[in-house]
Amino acid sequence: MNCWFTELQTDHLKLSCRVKKVLCEEKTPFQHLAVYDTVQFGRMLALDDVIQTTVKDEFVYHEMITHVGLNTHPNPRRVLVIGGGDGGSIREILKHSSVEQATLVEIDERVIAAAREYLPEISCALDDPRVRVIVDDGIKHVKENRNTYDMIIVDSTDPVGPAEGLFGKAFYQDVHDALTEDGLFVAQTESPFFNQDIISRVFRDIRSIFPITRLFLACVPTYPGGLWSFTMGSKKYDPRQVNVLELPDLKTRYYSPAIHRAAFELPPFVAELVEQG
Amino acid sequence: MNCWFTELQTDHLKLSCRVKKVLCEEKTPFQHLAVYDTVQFGRMLALDDVIQTTVKDEFVYHEMITHVGLNTHPNPRRVLVIGGGDGGSIREILKHSSVEQATLVEIDERVIAAAREYLPEISCALDDPRVRVIVDDGIKHVKENRNTYDMIIVDSTDPVGPAEGLFGKAFYQDVHDALTEDGLFVAQTESPFFNQDIISRVFRDIRSIFPITRLFLACVPTYPGGLWSFTMGSKKYDPRQVNVLELPDLKTRYYSPAIHRAAFELPPFVAELVEQG
Repeated sequence: MNCWFTELQTDHLKLSCRVKKVLCEEKTPFQHLAVYDTVQFGRMLALDDVIQTTVKDEFVYHEMITHVGLNTHPNPRRVLVIGGGDGGSIREILKHSSVEQATLVEIDERVIAAAREYLPEISCALDDPRVRVIVDDGIKHVKENRNTYDMIIVDSTDPVGPAEGLFGKAFYQDVHDALTEDGLFVAQTESPFFNQDIISRVFRDIRSIFPITRLFLACVPTYPGGLWSFTMGSKKYDPRQVNVLELPDLKTRYYSPAIHRAAFELPPFVAELVEQG
Repeated sequence: MNCWFTELQTDHLKLSCRVKKVLCEEKTPFQHLAVYDTVQFGRMLALDDVIQTTVKDEFVYHEMITHVGLNTHPNPRRVLVIGGGDGGSIREILKHSSVEQATLVEIDERVIAAAREYLPEISCALDDPRVRVIVDDGIKHVKENRNTYDMIIVDSTDPVGPAEGLFGKAFYQDVHDALTEDGLFVAQTESPFFNQDIISRVFRDIRSIFPITRLFLACVPTYPGGLWSFTMGSKKYDPRQVNVLELPDLKTRYYSPAIHRAAFELPPFVAELVEQG
């Protein structure tokens, strides 16, 4: 079949995946949503024509946005995911036995519905009794829930459209206030090759609010350039001070105790982005 | 301008770069050669429609294929590059003061000519007095030069067409014999996402010949999936035993002493590829 989904990764760069079947396509109140069955990556969720996750490579992103933070906090009991309606972050969070409640706050209920129907490998944990699914604006939720969460994960789309406010300083302050006194948060913060201004600004903003701010990296093949950044803001625990020899043995394919440490080693061109701030 | 260069990265995945200008295009005796001026990555060399290097991101690949090995060997004096006609590896090798002679053996003189004309940032060191440029088949060269090189870098295209023999066990044995008694070599060995069979087979073949075999990773945005593998075969020195605190301060943008160490930390799904062998 010669049908291709094409993402305009930047104005001058396109990634195209051969499509076996279009499984669903709709205009939700927030965005254009589609699930494709692709040859290369299996089923794939795209929002506003941007690849969010695929069955074949989602493990990288979901393991790294969750376990680095969860293994930095000694006892994360209440965890919040903002965005992440596909459920992949929730699935990973539940691998930690300390977690008593994992709350998903997704603004677009159609994303959750599509993931439940077409991406069962990713959404499989959404019905777990420890999970609470709330359809609401994450910005509003953190404003209304002070001193509540041990960890918050900002599992958002790119900073345009519904996710724009999730990259702003006012939001990071609200995240700070929604965390318990030793809480921490992790956000996906775009590409070190193509979004250097965002990484620098976000890092500076988070560092002005949190005593410990750290950038780490992973390689997600379906994201522009592969190399992807995550930023952690933490009130007390430093992810680089974790004794990786004592970390639990999680069933993971990308994250490992050694990767926990290695992910914070930044190539000089990336380190520069967060030293200038 | 709405002109795009498209690489079929796999049968089911395409990467497209907007082209400002086609700087040269020709059929050489070995392959189709083109240099494009792209908006995203600047000037770009493509061989048989596969991106080899671009001005904007070449630093990742060239720094990682050279410095990891050069900093593993305590005194690399004679270094051979097989392939690498763009000159990027040679440029990085010359940053090491121990190097007395860097030999480039490229099979296609048109690649060298195109790099000299259109990619001066990359080819700039080819006229250095320490450099010897030989237009010849690298397979023949290693057969004819025994016990000669402290380090060999296999900076090849993908294992189809002219580079196919550079991924074979017989070649690795010749590389072994072309090295001095404490020599080592590094080869680019494709994508952990898309070429798992190649990585496993090459690692097994090299391990059957060299006492020390190590895989390491870097993220090159213009290569399929971003994440890229390199394999080192070494007669004596282990790259993981290097005291990174004593490494020289090279002017690099991706490689660093910390990255030297971190690059060998393999995500479990990659580690599996080289443990099965």
